[in-house]
Parts: sequence; C-alpha cells; structure tokens
Amino acid sequence: MRNRGRRRLAMTVGAVVLATSVGAEDATWLDPYRQPASRILAATRDDRAAWNRLAELTDTFGPRLSGTPQLEAAYRWAAAEMRADGFDNVRLEKVMVPTWVRGRESAEIVEPFPSVLAMLGLGNSVGTPPDGIAAEILVVKSAEDLEARAPAAKGKIVVFNVPYTGYGATVRYRSAGASMAAKHGAVAMLLRSVGLPGLRTPHTGSLHYADGVPRIPAAAVSGEDADRLQRMSDRGQKVRVRLLMEAHFLPDSESANLIAELPGRERPQEIVLMGGHLDSWDVGVGAIDDGGGCVAAWEALRVLKRLGLRPRRTIRVVFWTNEENGLRGGLAYRDQHRAELADHVLAMESDGGVFRPRGFGFSGNDKARAAVAQIASLLSPIGADHVGPTGGGADIGPAVAEGNIPAMSLDVEGAKYFLYHHTAADTPDKIDPEEIALSTASLAVMSYVVADMPTRLGR
Amino acid sequence: MRNRGRRRLAMTVGAVVLATSVGAEDATWLDPYRQPASRILAATRDDRAAWNRLAELTDTFGPRLSGTPQLEAAYRWAAAEMRADGFDNVRLEKVMVPTWVRGRESAEIVEPFPSVLAMLGLGNSVGTPPDGIAAEILVVKSAEDLEARAPAAKGKIVVFNVPYTGYGATVRYRSAGASMAAKHGAVAMLLRSVGLPGLRTPHTGSLHYADGVPRIPAAAVSGEDADRLQRMSDRGQKVRVRLLMEAHFLPDSESANLIAELPGRERPQEIVLMGGHLDSWDVGVGAIDDGGGCVAAWEALRVLKRLGLRPRRTIRVVFWTNEENGLRGGLAYRDQHRAELADHVLAMESDGGVFRPRGFGFSGNDKARAAVAQIASLLSPIGADHVGPTGGGADIGPAVAEGNIPAMSLDVEGAKYFLYHHTAADTPDKIDPEEIALSTASLAVMSYVVADMPTRLGR
Repeated sequence: MRNRGRRRLAMTVGAVVLATSVGAEDATWLDPYRQPASRILAATRDDRAAWNRLAELTDTFGPRLSGTPQLEAAYRWAAAEMRADGFDNVRLEKVMVPTWVRGRESAEIVEPFPSVLAMLGLGNSVGTPPDGIAAEILVVKSAEDLEARAPAAKGKIVVFNVPYTGYGATVRYRSAGASMAAKHGAVAMLLRSVGLPGLRTPHTGSLHYADGVPRIPAAAVSGEDADRLQRMSDRGQKVRVRLLMEAHFLPDSESANLIAELPGRERPQEIVLMGGHLDSWDVGVGAIDDGGGCVAAWEALRVLKRLGLRPRRTIRVVFWTNEENGLRGGLAYRDQHRAELADHVLAMESDGGVFRPRGFGFSGNDKARAAVAQIASLLSPIGADHVGPTGGGADIGPAVAEGNIPAMSLDVEGAKYFLYHHTAADTPDKIDPEEIALSTASLAVMSYVVADMPTRLGR
Repeated sequence: MRNRGRRRLAMTVGAVVLATSVGAEDATWLDPYRQPASRILAATRDDRAAWNRLAELTDTFGPRLSGTPQLEAAYRWAAAEMRADGFDNVRLEKVMVPTWVRGRESAEIVEPFPSVLAMLGLGNSVGTPPDGIAAEILVVKSAEDLEARAPAAKGKIVVFNVPYTGYGATVRYRSAGASMAAKHGAVAMLLRSVGLPGLRTPHTGSLHYADGVPRIPAAAVSGEDADRLQRMSDRGQKVRVRLLMEAHFLPDSESANLIAELPGRERPQEIVLMGGHLDSWDVGVGAIDDGGGCVAAWEALRVLKRLGLRPRRTIRVVFWTNEENGLRGGLAYRDQHRAELADHVLAMESDGGVFRPRGFGFSGNDKARAAVAQIASLLSPIGADHVGPTGGGADIGPAVAEGNIPAMSLDVEGAKYFLYHHTAADTPDKIDPEEIALSTASLAVMSYVVADMPTRLGR
C-alpha cells in the first residue's frame, strides 16, 4: 500500500518536473551529455563484467557479516582489484564494528510431537541458556492483539504472526517485537518472517532492545511455520516450543570503508558520492543486499575511466561496512569526512537490489530535482528515466543529514526483493546480468553528468 | 520432454477410446451413476474437510520418516479417526521398516574461504567419520563427463552438477551417483538437487549403493550452491569442501499399513483398492508427498459413507508405510494379501500431489480402459475426465505386478510438484483446499462406480 502510494506520487511529481523543465532557460545545457550517455549505454548494456565480478565476489568470500574474516578478505580483494583497475586514492578507512556471532541455533515443537521449525535468529539477539528455553507458545497477530492478551504472555514464547503487508508495515515487529513481548513477561519471541511467501524460508535482520525491559532471545520462523503454529493454537492444541540460540557478541573488531576515486579535472574538491555496503547477513552471500550495489558503482566508475570520461568534479565510490547491524560505516564516513561534507554535491546509494532500473529516488530542492530529471531523461532508452519524490540510503544517511547533501537512490524493479531479502537465497543467480549492467549504466550516466555539469547541483 | 511426450500420447489415446465407447453396446450402463456422481461432486467441491484433516495430520505429527515415533503416532491417530468415522475393518497390519537416521549434517567450503553450503544428506547414505571428510572437489556435468575425467576423481568429492531436465532424466544421479563416483575413487558425492529452481532449497531422496563398490557418503546441495561450485571450478579456483554426516541405520522397527473399508453389499470379496503412503521424508511435513494422497482417499471413502453410497464391491483404503526409503509397505501388502489379489478389481494410488485433478493414468486392457474412460466422463464438470496411457504407483506396484491387477493413478496438474518434492517446503499451505476437494471427488466417483458397476472391470 505505502509503496503503491509512493509510486503514484512519484509519477505525478516526475511529470510535473519534466513539464517544467522543458523550455526552461538552460534546457540546452544537457546536449553535450547526449553523446557520452550513449557511449556509456553502448559500452555497458551487453557487458557481463558487472555480473561476473559480483559472482566472483560472492562465490569466493561468501557471506560477509561484520566482524568476520570473510568481510575483511573481501575488502582487501576489492581494494587490490580497484588499484589494478587504475582508480585513484584507493584506500581503506578504519571502522570498528560490532561482532555478533549467530552460533548454533534451532527451534522445535516439543509438544504435542517433536518437529523442527525453519528459523533464523535475529541479528543482535541474545542467546538462550545452553539447553535452550522450552515454553508454551502464545500466538498473536499484532501489537494490539498482544496488548489485549497481555496476561497470557507471562512465561510464554510469544509468536508474532503478523501478515506481511509490506516491509515498512511489518519490520517494526522484527525490530521491536522482542521488547514488546518481554514487557509482558514473555521468555522468548518468534516472528513470522518479514518477507514474501517463500519455500519455508526464514528471513533474518536486526532487532533493537528497548531500555528497561529484559532482553529475551528472538528468532524469525518461516511463514509456513508461523501458519502452522497459528492453526495449532486455533485448534486448541497445547504447543510447547524449545528455542536454542548460542547468539552472542564478541568485542568490536576492525573493519573499513573502502574508497576509490575518479578525480575531478577542474574542481576535484567537489565530490559526487556513490556506493553500497559490502557487509551482508551471514546466511546468503549478499549478492542482492548489497554486493550488487557495490559492484554496480564500481563498474560505473570503471566504464567512465575506460571511455576516458573524466568529469569536472570527483566521483567517489564507497563500499560502506556494517550497514546490516550497526551502521558504523555510514557513521564513520560522516565523522571522518565532516570537513568535506559541504563539498559533497550529491550522495547516491544503491541498496535495493540491482534489478531492472527504473530511475532514481531523489531528495533535494526543486531546481536540483529539475536538473536530475533532465539527466535521467538520458536514460530513457533503457527505461530508467523516472525520478521519484524521495531518495537516500542507510549508509549515506548520516552524511546527508549532517551536510544537508542532495540524496539519491537507484530505483529498480523491486517485486522480488523481499522474497530474497536477508535469506539464504540471496545469491548472485537472482540477479540478471543484463539488469546489473543497466544499473551500472544508470549510475555511470547520473554520476558523470552531475560531476561534470557546468553549474553545481544546488542544495 | 518425457512428460510432454506422455501428455500428447495420452490425449490421442483418450480421444480414440472415447470415440470407440460412444455408441458401444453398453453405453447406457453409466446412466444410473450420473446422479450419484453429481451428489458426490456437490458434497465435496466446496468442502474444506479434506484440507483441514491434512493440516491437522501434518501440523500435529510433522515429518513422518519410517522408524520414527511420529509416523507411528500418526497411524494410531488415523486409525482412531477412521473408527470414529464409522469405517469397517479398520486395522493396522504390521510391517517391519528400515530406520535411517539423518543425524547432524553439514557441508561447507573450507577453501578459499569458509562458507556454508545448503545441503541435505541423501536417504540411506552412510555417514562420514565424526570430523567429516574434507577434500578438493571435482565438478562434473554428467556420467559421461565423469567417465572422461575419471582419473581426476580419486580422493575428491565429486559434485554432479546435472541440469534438471525432468525427474526421470536426472533422478538416476541421486540413486546411483554415489556409486558412480566411488568406482573412480571419490571419497564423497554431492548432487545438484533433483527439482525445479527454488530458494536455495536442497531436495533429499534415497540413494542405492551398487554392490562391490565402496559406500561413500552422499548429499544434495541446492541448485545455487551447485552453480557456485561450478563457477569456482570454471574460474580455476581450488575449492575444498568439508562434508559431515552422522547418517546411519538403526535396527528395523515396527510400522504398519493402515486399512479401512466400505464393505461391498453384494460381492464383498471383490476389492477396489485405493490410497497413498503415510510415511514422508524427515524435512518437510509430507503434505504433498503423500499426506494429501492419503487424506483424499480417506475423505473419498467418508463422502460415500455419508451419502449412503454403498457399492456392490468393497472399497478398501490403505495408507502404506515406508514408500520413501524401502517400499516395505507395498511389499508387505502384496505378501499379506496374496490370496486376495485375484479379487482385486482395481488398484489406485494418489502420490503425485493433490493439486487440481485432470483425470487418471490407467494401465489395463482395452475394454477396461473404455469403461474407465466412461466413468471419468462423469468428472467432466470439474475437468478431471482425462485418462492417460499408464497408471500405477510405487506402493501398489508389488501387488499389481504379482496379481496382474488393473492399475490407476490420480493425475493432477503437476507443474509445481518438483518445486516442493522432498524438501522442507512440503507443507499443507502448498495444497489448495478446493484442489484437494476435487481430488477427493475424483477418487470417490471413480472408486464408487468401479466398485458398483454391473460387470467387473476386466483384466
């Protein structure tokens, strides 16, 4: 619902903006960029380089949760490859990250008959005692349902069986459900996975414990298992579940944001920022979330370099760390680059999967929006010319907020994103080689023109 | 391919048969069955009873692998429910079954970087030593590819990455791949799962070790993982995998075939047999394979009883045991009922999922086929009037072969069957309540008319 609302609004705004920009005084400033844009599209759209690089990254290093040697090895590999690609100022900027370890985990019905549930512990959850926690379940359908039955929650494992009606509407139960349940004396929390119907597929993701409430272990179960517990409960069957989780934190460990640049030829101190996060959850291999976003930005920079398109301003690619369970990369970037934020012309993130691009979301003033919409029109041959009403991303968020930087997200066909999101099925085969190539092209055209346009994008 | 070929052939044969039967001397024998068939359809098609019973069975007892207390508890429950339904001669006929235990299991890439593979050990596999088996992999695409590279297999974990082109064409690698690889000195075998593309979904199933070849542990990995190992191998990356499986057999344990009857009013010694298998793999809850087949036969008998439709001959419902990894139920039925086999008029099995029914597969002589096609025409209002060229089922197979019994299978829309087959996603939500109701109706009409028709079905 929320998404459909946004789409309609975006289309209206886009149409108005395009209508306004046609015939505007500077309508011809775009003309010199038509040929470079065509060259970028021609060079990328049938190129499997982006997909191959994504596969090599995710195949070789696998899942890249913050605090793992795999993530750090992936950073070292990417830095070396970027140097080999001839990028400038390739560097790893140290960031300390939380180190959450899943450990062994399981959930099973123990009464009426032993039967395993398909589950994934939620990131940042505490663990159970070594023998687990066994208790009767209380299945609720919403926060209001829990409030209405609060006395029954004491000593129980509360199961939030909240129908998935969209990420925004349901993710709050993943974030806050454990504390909601603990407030009423629950001993653990199970969550219907926040995602589209799958194949007994649990979705992980992080939780946040509220202050002043006991921290209880929490896990997601598949939609099928939530339905099963609901039916058993509706039938009046007494159901006891045993949850075992070894989840715990280790001391913070050293990670990094990786930076590479195409330095500006006239105003190198002005920066067009783009990238994604290299860390991922520990269950899939983080191809959709967000290896693809990193690789598309990387390949966008590479195609500009390969075509000799060196813009006036600097294009900076960043692979942020720890987006999934701490945002330490985005926070560190803000702190380490505070002095530069006034010179950040645009911050752009791709973290919605590199499926077929439709355009961009954009947050900025009207004049900047008009310019961005004109640039996006260069992507009409591939259908990526839409500009939606809001843009941004978790990693660029802290810098954008601190520096009042115009913010942009790559907007893609997202119908399947929440089928794979935070699951073991986040693997590179879910990304189409042509679609990541078109995403690469979109980032390359947008970043190049914003970095080269005569008048700096306003804020 | 094989399936499409069969479909075309079936349609041709069906058309010929129908053309022949129209105007045949006994074309009017069917008329008295039009009203009962309509009553059966009216009583079942909007009835959720079958789906509810399937959900209760699979929710309560969960997976029902041979040798588990869950399977035996499910048998006791079903027998008690059938007695409560008022069926006659409800009994459990003892069958000793193999008891294969999966135990803990895992597969992970250990070089170049540790990374977990989504896997399921194959049924009847031996286990590994307690610390597992770690070895370099050899990825092959077919038996011929393995033969061509046989010297490279020694000491390796052979990965059969055989594209899924249909169950019949690829299941032989699950059955025989371990011995194929062991013959050339492989230390373990991994198999690309035999099934449709899923969500990192491994498919289990049984293997068979050839005589005179070392028995090596074998497991299925998801299609995504097979593709990953293939790409890494194609890139020239050295990949070492560690396989750990605690799989082992315990001594045979006691199980049963469950029998219930609607006794014939004139020729009770003549039997129309129908059913499915109550055992399942240990990873899903066996709703599609084959709880649904059992419940549809059960509900078919119940609707006949409820409508007071007592046929001339006996209709016998059987829930066979141990179809998945031994077929001991089907073999025991043959042996325990040898004296009755000559009086088995028809044996009918539903083990292809209770999706939307299209009709039946049938193996028998031409006259019997003509009669069966006429009966199936009573199901044209629900589109289940097709009769294909061959029918049967694993559980009825031994009796059919021994007794030369006409054999039939319920034929359903099967496009998704091999998405769920032998996976954790075999859960009741994959079955549509209307479709299992229509399957029930189809079995009820067919079994009733065959059991009541004036002239016994020929053989």
